[in-house]
Amino acid sequence: MFRDLSRPIETGMPTYPGDPDVTLVPDATHETDGYATSELRTGTHAGTHVDAPRHTLPEGEAIDERDVGRFAFEARLVDCRPLTPREPIAPDALPDPDALDRDVDLLVLRTGWESHWGTERYRDHPYLTAAAAERCRAAGVGVGLDTFGPDPTPTADGKNGGESIGGDEPDGTPAHDALLSDSLPIVENLRGLDGLPNRFRLYAFPLRLHGADGSPVRAVAEWEE
Amino acid sequence: MFRDLSRPIETGMPTYPGDPDVTLVPDATHETDGYATSELRTGTHAGTHVDAPRHTLPEGEAIDERDVGRFAFEARLVDCRPLTPREPIAPDALPDPDALDRDVDLLVLRTGWESHWGTERYRDHPYLTAAAAERCRAAGVGVGLDTFGPDPTPTADGKNGGESIGGDEPDGTPAHDALLSDSLPIVENLRGLDGLPNRFRLYAFPLRLHGADGSPVRAVAEWEE
Repeated sequence: MFRDLSRPIETGMPTYPGDPDVTLVPDATHETDGYATSELRTGTHAGTHVDAPRHTLPEGEAIDERDVGRFAFEARLVDCRPLTPREPIAPDALPDPDALDRDVDLLVLRTGWESHWGTERYRDHPYLTAAAAERCRAAGVGVGLDTFGPDPTPTADGKNGGESIGGDEPDGTPAHDALLSDSLPIVENLRGLDGLPNRFRLYAFPLRLHGADGSPVRAVAEWEE
Repeated sequence: MFRDLSRPIETGMPTYPGDPDVTLVPDATHETDGYATSELRTGTHAGTHVDAPRHTLPEGEAIDERDVGRFAFEARLVDCRPLTPREPIAPDALPDPDALDRDVDLLVLRTGWESHWGTERYRDHPYLTAAAAERCRAAGVGVGLDTFGPDPTPTADGKNGGESIGGDEPDGTPAHDALLSDSLPIVENLRGLDGLPNRFRLYAFPLRLHGADGSPVRAVAEWEE
């Protein structure tokens, strides 16, 4: 059983604030060339994608430097709902590292935020506290998220969401940094989490983008029925 | 056991004649933004990629219209070597459909041409005859190739390679058409075929490019050691 956990990629799709616009336009055409091709312009973090350590760490590993098999994850679904806008996710929302199956290398955190995709509210997603990121490090697991990412996203009217909404929000990208400094993967903007089993395999193979900080992916879940 | 069968994607990489140039350039930077992102411009058929039926058939299925699980292939390696430049691959080079394991849905044809990547000689790859494409249809299998594709590629000095090299080469894209009209997949520009086992799983999940004719992929082989 397979399921697509990916956002469609198309011209004008929602992107993280400040990221390049996405365009997908015809190039060769059946009429003129006898076949059709298209040209894609996209940021490396558009839609469903994987972050490389280099995304937030200047000396971090690039997306093409890791063995590709590492992106076939043994995933564990963690339903964190209900959550309110910009609510911090504390460590006790995550499984105890000692109780986690040893082969699990990715926690897919369901925040419920996928339903807000394409609206301003999508920016107001819950985020991981520093202590929650530390729990992931202790367990040696990365995270998959149905949000822009594990750190707060700026609001429409300010660089730091914390200034507008909640004064406790961290500056910078501490959850990213904690995970990526241990080379723990981060998969962002997942969708289709409803009804997934507790355990599944998640394929999130990045394009082989030379030296890049991340890559759009086709995220695919597989499990035995 | 996993193996990467994909070409690196980078600025200035080789592309099919007439296809858009590929560029991968920094966008956000650690110095200015606190994190790094990049912008990718690419044709949908750059590097290792999958063709959708719409690539050569105007009414054909788009790359995002097929269930994503169909791109996890049960692959059979077929070593067609030795082959000479622009040599036609006849049906008897392919397995008898009746002798093929029933679960196989992709033949990965090793022509030896991957060693010519980045040179003019890469255009002079062997190609599938109409009869060989028919054999694939009879077996219900798509093809993966270590070349630009299953039809001849134009030479540097002419639209139709057949005019320059061998008068028997077909016009148009008959092998593509035969396969794609039955919705049989085509995976192109594979690399790293040396030492693959006879049978393996091949992941070639396309990006979820809305309405597109194809997509770059990270092609990954997996097998039990």
